[in-house]
Amino acid sequence: MSQSLAIVNIGQLVTLSGPSRPRVGKELGELGIIPNAAILIEDGRINATGTYADLKAQIPPHAAVIDAENRCVTPGFVDAHTHLVFAGNRAAEFEQRIAGATYQQIASAGGGILSTVRQTRAASEDDLLAAARAHRNWMLRTGTTTIEAKSGYGLDLDSELRILRILRRLNSEGPSRIIPTLLAAHTVPPEFAQNRAAYIRLIIEEIIPAVASTSLARYCDAFCDDHAFTVEESRTILEAAKRHGLGLRIHAEQFRPGTGAALAAELSAATADHLETVTEETLQQLKTAGTQPVLLPGSVFALSRTQYPPARIMIDLGLAIVLATDFNPGSSPVASMPFILSLACLEMRLSPAEALTAATINAAHSLGLAAQIGSIESGKQADLLIHEFHDYRELAYFIAAPARPRVFIAGREVTA
Amino acid sequence: MSQSLAIVNIGQLVTLSGPSRPRVGKELGELGIIPNAAILIEDGRINATGTYADLKAQIPPHAAVIDAENRCVTPGFVDAHTHLVFAGNRAAEFEQRIAGATYQQIASAGGGILSTVRQTRAASEDDLLAAARAHRNWMLRTGTTTIEAKSGYGLDLDSELRILRILRRLNSEGPSRIIPTLLAAHTVPPEFAQNRAAYIRLIIEEIIPAVASTSLARYCDAFCDDHAFTVEESRTILEAAKRHGLGLRIHAEQFRPGTGAALAAELSAATADHLETVTEETLQQLKTAGTQPVLLPGSVFALSRTQYPPARIMIDLGLAIVLATDFNPGSSPVASMPFILSLACLEMRLSPAEALTAATINAAHSLGLAAQIGSIESGKQADLLIHEFHDYRELAYFIAAPARPRVFIAGREVTA
Repeated sequence: MSQSLAIVNIGQLVTLSGPSRPRVGKELGELGIIPNAAILIEDGRINATGTYADLKAQIPPHAAVIDAENRCVTPGFVDAHTHLVFAGNRAAEFEQRIAGATYQQIASAGGGILSTVRQTRAASEDDLLAAARAHRNWMLRTGTTTIEAKSGYGLDLDSELRILRILRRLNSEGPSRIIPTLLAAHTVPPEFAQNRAAYIRLIIEEIIPAVASTSLARYCDAFCDDHAFTVEESRTILEAAKRHGLGLRIHAEQFRPGTGAALAAELSAATADHLETVTEETLQQLKTAGTQPVLLPGSVFALSRTQYPPARIMIDLGLAIVLATDFNPGSSPVASMPFILSLACLEMRLSPAEALTAATINAAHSLGLAAQIGSIESGKQADLLIHEFHDYRELAYFIAAPARPRVFIAGREVTA
Repeated sequence: MSQSLAIVNIGQLVTLSGPSRPRVGKELGELGIIPNAAILIEDGRINATGTYADLKAQIPPHAAVIDAENRCVTPGFVDAHTHLVFAGNRAAEFEQRIAGATYQQIASAGGGILSTVRQTRAASEDDLLAAARAHRNWMLRTGTTTIEAKSGYGLDLDSELRILRILRRLNSEGPSRIIPTLLAAHTVPPEFAQNRAAYIRLIIEEIIPAVASTSLARYCDAFCDDHAFTVEESRTILEAAKRHGLGLRIHAEQFRPGTGAALAAELSAATADHLETVTEETLQQLKTAGTQPVLLPGSVFALSRTQYPPARIMIDLGLAIVLATDFNPGSSPVASMPFILSLACLEMRLSPAEALTAATINAAHSLGLAAQIGSIESGKQADLLIHEFHDYRELAYFIAAPARPRVFIAGREVTA
């Protein structure tokens, strides 16, 4: 007999049902809301959604029934850009930045990414796993059910593989879904500081093949920036990844235009991430290529910067925007997707509905997972949240609220 | 036999010990940290603090012992400015503001404070209490152990008294400490729109005497603003409150200079709150009067404004700054003091240490409670937090983190 679950008395069911392609333009604001709703779940998959009145008779007698107490139900958040696995934290650098040091100055002084690389290489696998679990738990508490997670604090063959193995283990043990991305091209490690070309060869000739042959990553990413990799270097790396069958994501145009977004379009990357400084011309190229912008307002906020990515222009141009945390110990120590929704609304002028679409179904599309997750539609995995709230807009409105949604992944309630 | 509790293995004990007056200047950064520490608690009060090695022999044999697992312990947060009791929420107005309406435009169209007044007057006392409890619980979850809470969504005698009775009941039932403030002068209610003077007479002749005679409030507040009460009106109200023995707090200079801060100094108010637009000259008057500035960065952030109060200038002038949430359904739907610390650091350039002092011991001083709470010192109530973190700076650094501190009030662990 199948495992049946019914969630009933849902005051506001936000299905995000709609076309089976990324949402653009006005579609971003169309949430497929059903009031006074219910959901039927069989063996972890959505079997039916509708009004409770219509579905009542279809609830199997053996079904477990959960009363949503008139609250709001949404899909689980899909966080499409995180750096989940690292040792230590950079609270001391946070203090230095407040006192006036720039992110770049701190990096030049041996801080920044490289300080996390040193700590991550030195940490035991158990300690790294425990730290990643703790942060994964933060994400679960705030309703993130799927996490894209990048390597990039190893920067040598063994350390990068170790991070990706930790991600595989986290995914296997569950409950969160983890989508791994290789980011060996995060920055040049100190031992190659005088020989960048050799590090790039290492990535292309050893790390990418090793990762691809063991299927330890689904995507390859590169940080294209004046302090990381040039457009040419990024192209070389990402083309190699593409040849090995990896999907592509790119850190692009964070601090100045011309750092990677056109390359993302050229390579038909799945995503171009950051884009704070992107020009409209380059956005047109992304649109033509079908590359989704992943907007990371947490890193703008956490760096006390004021230039957020031009989200409204992207929407006007028809781009299928995605929102993500960029969770990392330097530029975005933000694990909470609801807080990202608040930032998106307050700082980028997304409506709460647009923000929710960008944080769920569009994010799922950017990871090639939209047939399985990202909306509450028949046949999909039952990854969903029963919120403390009665209206989805409260998710963004109650800023940094310590709300505790009930979290379901594949129809199973999980806690963290 | 007394009830004894020992908290041991504290990696970093942030005592905030220091002078028994509000902290100013460099003192704001001096946290009285004891590494590898322990705390001895007797009948809910701090009996001793020191290194675990020094205190080990003094732990009574019958004491309950809690292992802090090398984590950071701080005093509980003292949130010195909230509007805790209201019905409904204003998520719809949040959406309107994002779409371009100003806070003032929404108020002029019958939204804003008055929409909450309508809902609050119409709500049952049970519903109001339940809503206040839910928000109080959010505050407890993020580590706030003492809450200043204002009336101000009633705006008639019965409704204001009802809100203050709810606050008294919340305080009685515990566990949070609630300090009630009368804010009948929040705005002019619709029934007095054509006769402001009559409403002010009502406040002075009926509401203040009724509140003072029943000790339902410890403070009286007035919203001095172009859209609320003039300086002259505020003076009349606050002088009456002073005659009735209430302490004074004032909403001042939020949107333009000359709206109440000089009045706060003139009346030797305990606090002048907001102060986004305050001038240096007026700050000097506050300094001379001993009036503490209460900074509310949540409302700047939630209104998508960019002018934060000039906190560094205040510190340079020797003012004993306080940080608070301003929790309310319109301009600051922010219940979390850790998020206020993040804003204070990122947007007002406070160091994490300065922010923590402003959110604990200085806030306690602003409420006349510094002899009882606000620091972890012998004789004080054991209101304290065992954080998930090992370093107090992580409180501000991990922005909007869904961390779950263990919360103790008067030595008793509480959950929410």
